[in-house]
Amino acid sequence: MSGPAVPIAIGPTDPPPTLVEKAVLEAGAAISDLDEARGLIWVGGPGEFPDELPASLEWVQLSAAGIEDWFTAGIFAKHPHIRFTSAAGAFAASVAEHALMLLLAGVRYLPEHLRASGWRQQDFFPHVGTLRGKTVTIVGAGGIGRALIPMLIPLGAHIIAVNRSGRPVTGPGIPDTVETISADHVGRIWPRTDHVVIAAPATPATRHLLGADELARLKPSSWIVNVARGSLIDTDALVAALASGAIGGAGLDVTDPEPLPDGHPLWVLPNSIVTPHDSNPPQLRLAAFADHVEANVQRFVTGRPLLAPIDRDRGY
Amino acid sequence: MSGPAVPIAIGPTDPPPTLVEKAVLEAGAAISDLDEARGLIWVGGPGEFPDELPASLEWVQLSAAGIEDWFTAGIFAKHPHIRFTSAAGAFAASVAEHALMLLLAGVRYLPEHLRASGWRQQDFFPHVGTLRGKTVTIVGAGGIGRALIPMLIPLGAHIIAVNRSGRPVTGPGIPDTVETISADHVGRIWPRTDHVVIAAPATPATRHLLGADELARLKPSSWIVNVARGSLIDTDALVAALASGAIGGAGLDVTDPEPLPDGHPLWVLPNSIVTPHDSNPPQLRLAAFADHVEANVQRFVTGRPLLAPIDRDRGY
Repeated sequence: MSGPAVPIAIGPTDPPPTLVEKAVLEAGAAISDLDEARGLIWVGGPGEFPDELPASLEWVQLSAAGIEDWFTAGIFAKHPHIRFTSAAGAFAASVAEHALMLLLAGVRYLPEHLRASGWRQQDFFPHVGTLRGKTVTIVGAGGIGRALIPMLIPLGAHIIAVNRSGRPVTGPGIPDTVETISADHVGRIWPRTDHVVIAAPATPATRHLLGADELARLKPSSWIVNVARGSLIDTDALVAALASGAIGGAGLDVTDPEPLPDGHPLWVLPNSIVTPHDSNPPQLRLAAFADHVEANVQRFVTGRPLLAPIDRDRGY
Repeated sequence: MSGPAVPIAIGPTDPPPTLVEKAVLEAGAAISDLDEARGLIWVGGPGEFPDELPASLEWVQLSAAGIEDWFTAGIFAKHPHIRFTSAAGAFAASVAEHALMLLLAGVRYLPEHLRASGWRQQDFFPHVGTLRGKTVTIVGAGGIGRALIPMLIPLGAHIIAVNRSGRPVTGPGIPDTVETISADHVGRIWPRTDHVVIAAPATPATRHLLGADELARLKPSSWIVNVARGSLIDTDALVAALASGAIGGAGLDVTDPEPLPDGHPLWVLPNSIVTPHDSNPPQLRLAAFADHVEANVQRFVTGRPLLAPIDRDRGY
């Protein structure tokens, strides 16, 4: 590359996280002080963000995917000439991988296997299922849903994606065999759904999206995976469905209430898998953020469009 | 389609398995008696196979993937004008899915999660891993290995495939970023391997392929998955590596000895997952065989090359 490397600052931690520093350098930029930087990778919150930015600065990369508090703090309005980007999309892959793990572990009867202390092949045979030829409904077609679809396709699952608009979900690795339906019509697809993955935001409209009525329309072999927010499922109805065998099981990275109290039936039921909201732990977040930084610094340096630009009008 | 449907017989069970009958009809053929059949789907072994075949018969589909006993019984030699096909490849997908499940469950620390009865998020965070950016070595690039690769690619894993020749592994969904190395050089790749999946046949050359020396070159975070045959791993060396934390864990659908006796350390170690050779249970075998029958009947009816033709010269 010709010319001096583009100067990028990292703040507010000093020294900056090694992985982030490495990402900036790998992308072909140079680490600089804020005074002379053209870009700033900000790993802190809005409270510590500098009031004054140097005239050289063009771009700020934030480290969170959801940036409501930055709007609330008025930071974007204060710096109208700066391009801000969030980490939206960067953390979806780890959560999608976790959802796949929970679904496969459920369908293939892993919890009961782990309780065994002897070779019970004939007992287990009838309970080992597959995703091949099965219909998986993914509620929510944001970053997590769109990351999960390409993971399920090679397993031979048929995918129904549920989003607000009903417009076909598209993206890398998403074939046009994926059905998309609008959330208004979600009631229609429960009877032909084998398994459900919840990956939609918590809103008043999605509260108890899976309640007693919906659970009753699923199959005794159906597994439900929730990697979004606990409130999307009616916990009492879920516990009843798990206890009666109305559904196959549930793999939950999020619960309602959360944290799930000791002694709760979801800890005890044999067809319940609970992971304590750890589908995207800090070390994986940092690694994913570093990958996102590397991609965006490369784009900045070469003048290509940045990933996850903040839209001041839409508020995200 | 014009003309009468092609007559296909199913034997020896009477009535034939519903799924297989349905597959023949779905493929556009008709079910007939053997007397007038052009094709025969044989769901039995060589012992019950008819001595005399009608002059109308052109093709026989067998229901096993390994057909050594058919060679031994001399069936192929007795019917030199009949095309025989096996079920080779049909059962690989379920085993590959099981391998993926075991690997993900291990890497994401599921066994310890399932033993928890309280919200131990901070304890669990550091142990939740990902396949993203990790190198998975798959020993054996037959049907199972080739089915597993496309399942791992969307998770962002780098794949090293090990086969006899070292010729690049190819197939549907296998990108050219997959490295292939010959089994003679497998020793070189342990230090840069994060996880290992064993999917190679049991031969004198592969016995104890993973022994104390190989295990010592892996990482404390490495998981080993075996869906092939127990004898490819030195069980005593594996137990020692699991107990000392030299490797992360093992997910085993096959063991040595098999069945694994009650009280064996592999039942007890917290980083050992054992499933009793049930990665391809009878009901999934039958469904997979029916899919294979449907594909081959379609090919037969339309005059295209059949899947898994038996090679009389090579003996498989």
